[in-house]
Amino acid sequence: MEKQTPQIGVVGMAVMGKNLALNIESRGYTVAIYNRTGSKTEAVAKEHADKHLVPSYTIKDFVASLEKPRRIILMVKAGAGTDAVIQELLPLLDKGDVLIDGGNTFFKDTMRRNKELDKSGINFIGMGVSGGELGALKGPSMMPGGQKEAYDLVAPIFEQMAAKADDGAPCVTYIGPNGAGHYVKMIHNGIEYGDEELIAESYHLLHELVGLSVDDIATIFNNWNKGELDSYLIDITADILTRKDDLGSGKPIVDMILDRTANKGTGKWSSANALELEIPQSLITESVYARYISMMKQERVKASKVLPKPVGKVDFDKNEIVEMIRKALYFSKIMSYAQGFEQMRIASAHYDWHLDYANIARIWRSGCIIRAQFLQNITDAYEKNPDLQNLMLDDYFLNITKQYQEAVRDLVGLAVKAGVPVPGFSAAIAYFDAYRSERLPANIIQAERDYFGAHTYERTDREGSFHYPWYEEQ
Amino acid sequence: MEKQTPQIGVVGMAVMGKNLALNIESRGYTVAIYNRTGSKTEAVAKEHADKHLVPSYTIKDFVASLEKPRRIILMVKAGAGTDAVIQELLPLLDKGDVLIDGGNTFFKDTMRRNKELDKSGINFIGMGVSGGELGALKGPSMMPGGQKEAYDLVAPIFEQMAAKADDGAPCVTYIGPNGAGHYVKMIHNGIEYGDEELIAESYHLLHELVGLSVDDIATIFNNWNKGELDSYLIDITADILTRKDDLGSGKPIVDMILDRTANKGTGKWSSANALELEIPQSLITESVYARYISMMKQERVKASKVLPKPVGKVDFDKNEIVEMIRKALYFSKIMSYAQGFEQMRIASAHYDWHLDYANIARIWRSGCIIRAQFLQNITDAYEKNPDLQNLMLDDYFLNITKQYQEAVRDLVGLAVKAGVPVPGFSAAIAYFDAYRSERLPANIIQAERDYFGAHTYERTDREGSFHYPWYEEQ
Repeated sequence: MEKQTPQIGVVGMAVMGKNLALNIESRGYTVAIYNRTGSKTEAVAKEHADKHLVPSYTIKDFVASLEKPRRIILMVKAGAGTDAVIQELLPLLDKGDVLIDGGNTFFKDTMRRNKELDKSGINFIGMGVSGGELGALKGPSMMPGGQKEAYDLVAPIFEQMAAKADDGAPCVTYIGPNGAGHYVKMIHNGIEYGDEELIAESYHLLHELVGLSVDDIATIFNNWNKGELDSYLIDITADILTRKDDLGSGKPIVDMILDRTANKGTGKWSSANALELEIPQSLITESVYARYISMMKQERVKASKVLPKPVGKVDFDKNEIVEMIRKALYFSKIMSYAQGFEQMRIASAHYDWHLDYANIARIWRSGCIIRAQFLQNITDAYEKNPDLQNLMLDDYFLNITKQYQEAVRDLVGLAVKAGVPVPGFSAAIAYFDAYRSERLPANIIQAERDYFGAHTYERTDREGSFHYPWYEEQ
Repeated sequence: MEKQTPQIGVVGMAVMGKNLALNIESRGYTVAIYNRTGSKTEAVAKEHADKHLVPSYTIKDFVASLEKPRRIILMVKAGAGTDAVIQELLPLLDKGDVLIDGGNTFFKDTMRRNKELDKSGINFIGMGVSGGELGALKGPSMMPGGQKEAYDLVAPIFEQMAAKADDGAPCVTYIGPNGAGHYVKMIHNGIEYGDEELIAESYHLLHELVGLSVDDIATIFNNWNKGELDSYLIDITADILTRKDDLGSGKPIVDMILDRTANKGTGKWSSANALELEIPQSLITESVYARYISMMKQERVKASKVLPKPVGKVDFDKNEIVEMIRKALYFSKIMSYAQGFEQMRIASAHYDWHLDYANIARIWRSGCIIRAQFLQNITDAYEKNPDLQNLMLDDYFLNITKQYQEAVRDLVGLAVKAGVPVPGFSAAIAYFDAYRSERLPANIIQAERDYFGAHTYERTDREGSFHYPWYEEQ
């Protein structure tokens, strides 16, 4: 088979790198491929001998095989692995070449690399890629950040390989300079933690409070997926709940899966960044903590035998409770996204990125793990008002809060009374209530701080900073 | 006045350094003092000419004035300031000298400095000091970490200058190697954020939900301070609530203080560390976020005019509600300390510190901001069982959870229904319920992760890690 000069190359032939390469190839491009361990490259080339893949077995040959300016996607282990490959590549590259890091990289590392490489005239794009292995192959959602002119050099390829939303728009857009792309991916992942926690709490309530079977809950999630909750995560949860144990117990597989949720770190990154930038990102953080407490399985089993169960009676209407849970899930999801978009707004100013929130919501509509119908509503909200201060204040979402808030309040009360932990739902309503509070009791804390540490306070009636003579009176 | 050779010196004559120097002097020691700006040293020396203070105006003279091995307390601005002073001191010191950093230093900086200085044979103690300006002068709670043999050289002085608990024990103890002291101080401060948030939520409920006046609330806090809530922060809150505006409005001063709580960073450090070490420290983190949302005053004022208020009716017994709030406050305080001590337990293993939790609770009984009667209960709990896995599992605290849990559940339900944000109380009961759950819905999330990312899962019936053939069936 005759092959053209590769228009783009991929370094790293683990499953994500391989699938991205195959995805690009499927759009009519010739793709150079390289892996540190040559046998892996060879295996991919052999398995896909009918495809326009050009394998190289030295990094030098790989670079030499590429059309100029070179476009190279790195799909290697984030961290030291990325730095090592960059160091190998650097002497072989020319000014104007474009390196794209498609790994799950911490955005501050991307900021550093972008700055360092820029000195040598090498463009560096940090790109978040969401959609898992299948998304990489069929069309992921992609969040590239770096030099705009470098993005323009890869945009035609990326727009073809990306997932397409219902309106045909590709799920990729230029996010902003240096670390903006990996930052937005980090927020995407934090939001994903939140979505998953809210689904888990809903399941828990349906199971423990309402007493429904796994089959019944599958049906409920299926119904939910036909309405405003329509989303990939609700959809796969419904599917998961219908699956039987593959090792033959006859039970639903979810009953055989241990209740410990691991994590790969991006959720905690997003919460740590919220702490640093002083943004109240409580729902995602509670979701991270919920994973941590799930990991303390042995401690929990011991504690469950000792700590008191609730004794109060819980009353609810069996006909209404499912709809209450659905409303609480949607309301809380809105709070979670409100916090995530608030975090991006503050970060955008802090890091000077000029993020476009409508475009970010737009490229999350398909391809990525949090894809959902309601991302169209978010897109619309920011298109109508790019300076929207908080998602809740958009008419569509405001209207949901008006219709659903009482259901959330009642449900949280029920869950707490029944002893079913709902840290996500609780954080959602606490955020809502704090955000709509003209006056919070923060005056009490500030008074205490002034009392013991002379930290001063502001006043309600005039400008300035004041200190009360606590020790000179009375 | 004749003066002895100073047994100890203090660098930094801002209020904390000055007060610590005067405190030590008051115990019968002669204290060398030095400040980068000499006029400050001179002012202190003049103001206290009758005291055994030996001022120096060069760092060389200061070091030369000291008894050997030298004992030097640094009370300078944490961060680059500390490094700069250390660099100046280093060539003037001898092996075996002891430097003590008494600033609010990030514990990882202390770990680094301890390691670096150890190479030159200089002992370096990082010491948390709590109690504010007055505590520094009269007797603070002190948390020193570093070389044990170095601590022994300063222990006699420190035990005299520290606050004394009711049983006469000094509020200072050797915490552990390198950064252990500053770490424990960081947790102290995180816990302080939690205490303050819980007090603020209680005030808010008494004011907004129950409709009590500031005077009535002062009386309630005063009463609470006579029972198991007896603590410095409850005490000063009661005092604060009785004070009238010093600028003449005739109103309580708390009504004139703007509801924005600032922060100096130690709370967020403790939460970031919990995220890093994977500890569910939700209550302190919610307290940090509550401060952040309080700072968004203008946004809140705008939102308060747009977002819907709760419409449901709230019923409660006026005779019972105050006691319910008291119970919720004490229960939630226990959850907060349970999380804080859990964090220290995990950190102790992670950083290899061998922390002694009974001793830590013991030195918090007096002098520091979180001093409280109930720290005696914590001391007792860890004395009885140094390996106690969670504070809740101690008999005393277990008994409180049994007696108070229903009040917390009812109160959170009421508050949420009434629209009064209670992120702290909510986090407390969610933590309690999750910790006592043999089974959490974490299986659902782990199934999702395996579905979209092949992240595998554990099973309830056998060891190992499994992947379900999601795409090969049906």
